[in-house]
Amino acid sequence: MKLLEDRIEKDGRVLGEDVLKVDSFLNHQIDPDLMVALGNEFYARFKDEPITKILTVESSGIAPALAAGMAFHVPVVFARKHKSLTLKDNLYTSEVYSFTKKTANQIAIAEKFLSSDDKVLIVDDFLANGQAVEGLIDIIGQAGATLEGVGIVIEKTFQKGRQLLDDRHIRVESLARIAAFENGHVVFAQD
Amino acid sequence: MKLLEDRIEKDGRVLGEDVLKVDSFLNHQIDPDLMVALGNEFYARFKDEPITKILTVESSGIAPALAAGMAFHVPVVFARKHKSLTLKDNLYTSEVYSFTKKTANQIAIAEKFLSSDDKVLIVDDFLANGQAVEGLIDIIGQAGATLEGVGIVIEKTFQKGRQLLDDRHIRVESLARIAAFENGHVVFAQD
Repeated sequence: MKLLEDRIEKDGRVLGEDVLKVDSFLNHQIDPDLMVALGNEFYARFKDEPITKILTVESSGIAPALAAGMAFHVPVVFARKHKSLTLKDNLYTSEVYSFTKKTANQIAIAEKFLSSDDKVLIVDDFLANGQAVEGLIDIIGQAGATLEGVGIVIEKTFQKGRQLLDDRHIRVESLARIAAFENGHVVFAQD
Repeated sequence: MKLLEDRIEKDGRVLGEDVLKVDSFLNHQIDPDLMVALGNEFYARFKDEPITKILTVESSGIAPALAAGMAFHVPVVFARKHKSLTLKDNLYTSEVYSFTKKTANQIAIAEKFLSSDDKVLIVDDFLANGQAVEGLIDIIGQAGATLEGVGIVIEKTFQKGRQLLDDRHIRVESLARIAAFENGHVVFAQD
């Protein structure tokens, strides 16, 4: 998606070998007009699927997921993150390891908001090692719901998340795909 | 706002003396179409103010704040919550006490996303004891920015948050105002 790639080139900041900071428009400060465009693009790519619900994880996933929900006119559910959960009554939970923070979190969704009738689109801000998406897929499985696809704002193709999802034949649509960082600049994957 | 009051009556659940659960449409599962309506209503009420930025706190504030940002076409910044912050470089921080959870959190916003030129609208999902809003006001003060008003989705008029803001002559617009809970039902304040 050209609009997004241009924005990443203009406002993204490459830190070290594999970190892209997009906190000026995606995950701390948010550009609402850009979110509308992203939501519409997710809709364009998945509109032929019978999506009934959009799933994401707090907090950075909420903005693009909500924008997608506005385009699909379906509910958005965000999983809550907890350091640990003592009480798991009426919750689907899964453990998610963060390679960035080197910590494990429980993510949880109330059982009443996901059922076996649901056709789910997962939306998240980043796909890197794929742990958050794997946790959501685990929860979708617990609910007996159907995963229709995964919509990602920014994918880093050189980390293992994409391969994990491809191996499971899950449809992934990423609006920007980063193949590498070279000398502090972003190199986008050629489709 | 009639649409919101009707939705609270239909889908809100009153727990005990002073808790209203709206996790089916506002703060766990989100109704995107309702968010668009809320965002437009915030715009209708504050459109004569020269708003340059919308501020909220993760995670429940993000959806209504983003919807407001879409109506105003201005950036939305969400404060991140931390149990404790050891590194405060380049951050505005404030301590927020949660009466519900009986814990204190640090909230933080990167300094680069709030400046003395900004005219800020705070948006949050609930106004109860007002601690989150007070923390954001503290941060706005640190940045030397101007607070133009506070937009709240659901206010509980019987808790002390509203009075705190009135005492400081801050304009507050709440889209639903709850005066009391009686026998498990919501009693809305008469304007």
